[in-house]
Amino acid sequence: MGRKRKEAPRAEPAAGNGILSRRFFLERTLAAGAAGLGASAAAAEPLAVPPWSREPGSDFTAYGQPSRFEGKVVRSWAAPANPATPGIGSSRTPHHLLDGTITPSALHYERSHSGVPDIDPEQHRLLIHGLVRQPLVFSLEDLSRYPRVSRIAFIECAGNSGALYTAQAQPLNVQAIHGLLSCSDWTGVKLSALLDEAGIDPRAKWVLAEGADASGMSRSFPLAKALDDAMVCLYQNGERVRPSNGYPLRLLLPGFEGNMNVKWLRRLKLVDAPIMTKDETSKYTILLKEDKAWQFVFPIEVKSIITRPSPGLTLKGPGFYEISGLAWSGNGRIRRVEVSADGGQSFAPAVLQEPVLPKALTRFRAAWQWGGGPAVLQSRATDETGMVQPSRAQFVAERGLRGNFHYNAIASWRIDQAGEATNVFA
Amino acid sequence: MGRKRKEAPRAEPAAGNGILSRRFFLERTLAAGAAGLGASAAAAEPLAVPPWSREPGSDFTAYGQPSRFEGKVVRSWAAPANPATPGIGSSRTPHHLLDGTITPSALHYERSHSGVPDIDPEQHRLLIHGLVRQPLVFSLEDLSRYPRVSRIAFIECAGNSGALYTAQAQPLNVQAIHGLLSCSDWTGVKLSALLDEAGIDPRAKWVLAEGADASGMSRSFPLAKALDDAMVCLYQNGERVRPSNGYPLRLLLPGFEGNMNVKWLRRLKLVDAPIMTKDETSKYTILLKEDKAWQFVFPIEVKSIITRPSPGLTLKGPGFYEISGLAWSGNGRIRRVEVSADGGQSFAPAVLQEPVLPKALTRFRAAWQWGGGPAVLQSRATDETGMVQPSRAQFVAERGLRGNFHYNAIASWRIDQAGEATNVFA
Repeated sequence: MGRKRKEAPRAEPAAGNGILSRRFFLERTLAAGAAGLGASAAAAEPLAVPPWSREPGSDFTAYGQPSRFEGKVVRSWAAPANPATPGIGSSRTPHHLLDGTITPSALHYERSHSGVPDIDPEQHRLLIHGLVRQPLVFSLEDLSRYPRVSRIAFIECAGNSGALYTAQAQPLNVQAIHGLLSCSDWTGVKLSALLDEAGIDPRAKWVLAEGADASGMSRSFPLAKALDDAMVCLYQNGERVRPSNGYPLRLLLPGFEGNMNVKWLRRLKLVDAPIMTKDETSKYTILLKEDKAWQFVFPIEVKSIITRPSPGLTLKGPGFYEISGLAWSGNGRIRRVEVSADGGQSFAPAVLQEPVLPKALTRFRAAWQWGGGPAVLQSRATDETGMVQPSRAQFVAERGLRGNFHYNAIASWRIDQAGEATNVFA
Repeated sequence: MGRKRKEAPRAEPAAGNGILSRRFFLERTLAAGAAGLGASAAAAEPLAVPPWSREPGSDFTAYGQPSRFEGKVVRSWAAPANPATPGIGSSRTPHHLLDGTITPSALHYERSHSGVPDIDPEQHRLLIHGLVRQPLVFSLEDLSRYPRVSRIAFIECAGNSGALYTAQAQPLNVQAIHGLLSCSDWTGVKLSALLDEAGIDPRAKWVLAEGADASGMSRSFPLAKALDDAMVCLYQNGERVRPSNGYPLRLLLPGFEGNMNVKWLRRLKLVDAPIMTKDETSKYTILLKEDKAWQFVFPIEVKSIITRPSPGLTLKGPGFYEISGLAWSGNGRIRRVEVSADGGQSFAPAVLQEPVLPKALTRFRAAWQWGGGPAVLQSRATDETGMVQPSRAQFVAERGLRGNFHYNAIASWRIDQAGEATNVFA
């Protein structure tokens, strides 16, 4: 048919094992004939009238919830090591069941070191002190008087993808491996504005941030970051920051590892050197292969994951599939994402969903014609600084397997002939 | 002090009655001394240790909720005209209590003509028929096979701000007047892809869209829109579309009046002329001054509202305030927003929060030094097509007060000496 001839170029291969050209996405229509997509022409009409079209529906709600049919779209977490102290650890975002780039606040990953405090915003205070001209204390009412800024930014736990620091690949899904990652529209006050009001002593070079949770979570970060793009956040995705993400006040250090974005922020102390708190000595230090460690590795390195297909989302027979995922870098914008269906032997560029924002999740998509045979799907991101996500072999050769944190090697899903996806090392 | 001298230029006036230059926002630090912001230096240290810092917090949650202290941040709606048929009407977004540009899905405005249907996604079908080569029916599983796109887009009810179609200003707040407006990150399939698969008959010029709710809400829209940027949405802000916003499938016609973004989408019929359904004849037609009406006015015209200060958010004495609001246009990007504190006698440009996206809400901010006297706050938006939001006098002169829909004149909040804001016509 003329239709097939017209559309064939759009379905042209771009890499091995069925990866198609991104022209498939960039043109208006689909290479539907070539791709064999799923609509049914049989008995299209008349469409049956379902029961919910026959009776009035339900009333408005003050604060809405998802459909009752979406009960599986939830965060997951491991049972606590000590049942007497819940809320120590983390819960994970179900990225295999989401799309777009904004993470619903209800599904933003949680990480707490002594549970989620129940803070009365009227009583909460933020203290700025140390090497300042004048210590200041702010109520939320005080903070509400300052000019605000908004930015869409990801937060990723330093320990995200830590399950890949093993010799053998574990049978885990995208939520279990990569779920300590989320992205929100944050609104608050520029930290530089608050520090300017307190008056920065020229000896100040670092800032200690401390949370109001019972663990007193605290980290040191360079003053230069405070004066660059740090924010004290009051709002997350339009509404007040959620309790497990720092209500009523969270520090945002865009692009820096998650724990430094101190939640329940109560204190900022300007100091001349890092404080070496428990949270930056006993934790969040990257062990290397030999008897060395990296400390104070702040920005999240360039990284990407494929969220679909992924374990648990079984492919329903050969044909067209969208490969979709997320890419991000703590150092700026994503410049390029490439995908492979043959375990990295060949790559082709994916489409990046606009707008591509700095230090935010970027959704990428690629077209894949699955022939029904084995495949290994990979994505490889490059950021605007030119940093490229390393292969696992490169990563392990450089850092070994003891690091715990900042794992950013290319990840692989193996697709078997039944259409099942599995975490593999390739 | 040298500090004041250095910072004084940043607090320079830009329009009457205290509107400051937007350099106040664009430079790194604040003109804090000049503005008299709210931090307290007295007894800053030691900071009291609150009770929630003394005991472990709560556990992780599968699907999170706001803090119990945020119970006032809810949608509002009028009691139904007939208590036997709830869910006919609309509920409104509390924009005075939100910030940023993404509306939480839980607070997205709701508009339904026969309540919210409880749709089983396994049973739901979308039919594409009429002037097509081959009628097709799609299950959600079918639709999940197609390539996806995402975009941040506003939806505004045609009747939003309809409360301003009165001779006398009513004592209403931003939620009651302007709350039929929300903005989400939508993800779905391009409608053009589905129509291409069905095969468009050259005689087709319009599309009928019908919902699966009991009202059978249905609208006609030009085929050109379907082939431009129309989407069939599966996801809203990362997760599946919420029930009151069309679960499991919503049509998105970016920039077109809300009701045309048909929820619970079950049927698209290609036709050669508009169908003249009940929803586009008895409703959603704009009455003009004389015996004329506008029909099929689809895109939302350029518009803006000030969300803060606004009624209910009392100013706490003279000093610095951020004037913050939202601007949007169904015809593209916002190019400029100007604010006035003297009822429109003088305007100065506001800062637009990046990224400024087409057919999406754009947050604007301006700096205001309130002297404590009476003021009338206004915002005036201009879009990239050059359209400028009209004054109320211009709008009423052109359209009269019987229109019900598409009110987009400049809105005014009067601030009295007690710091209370009131809806006024100015």
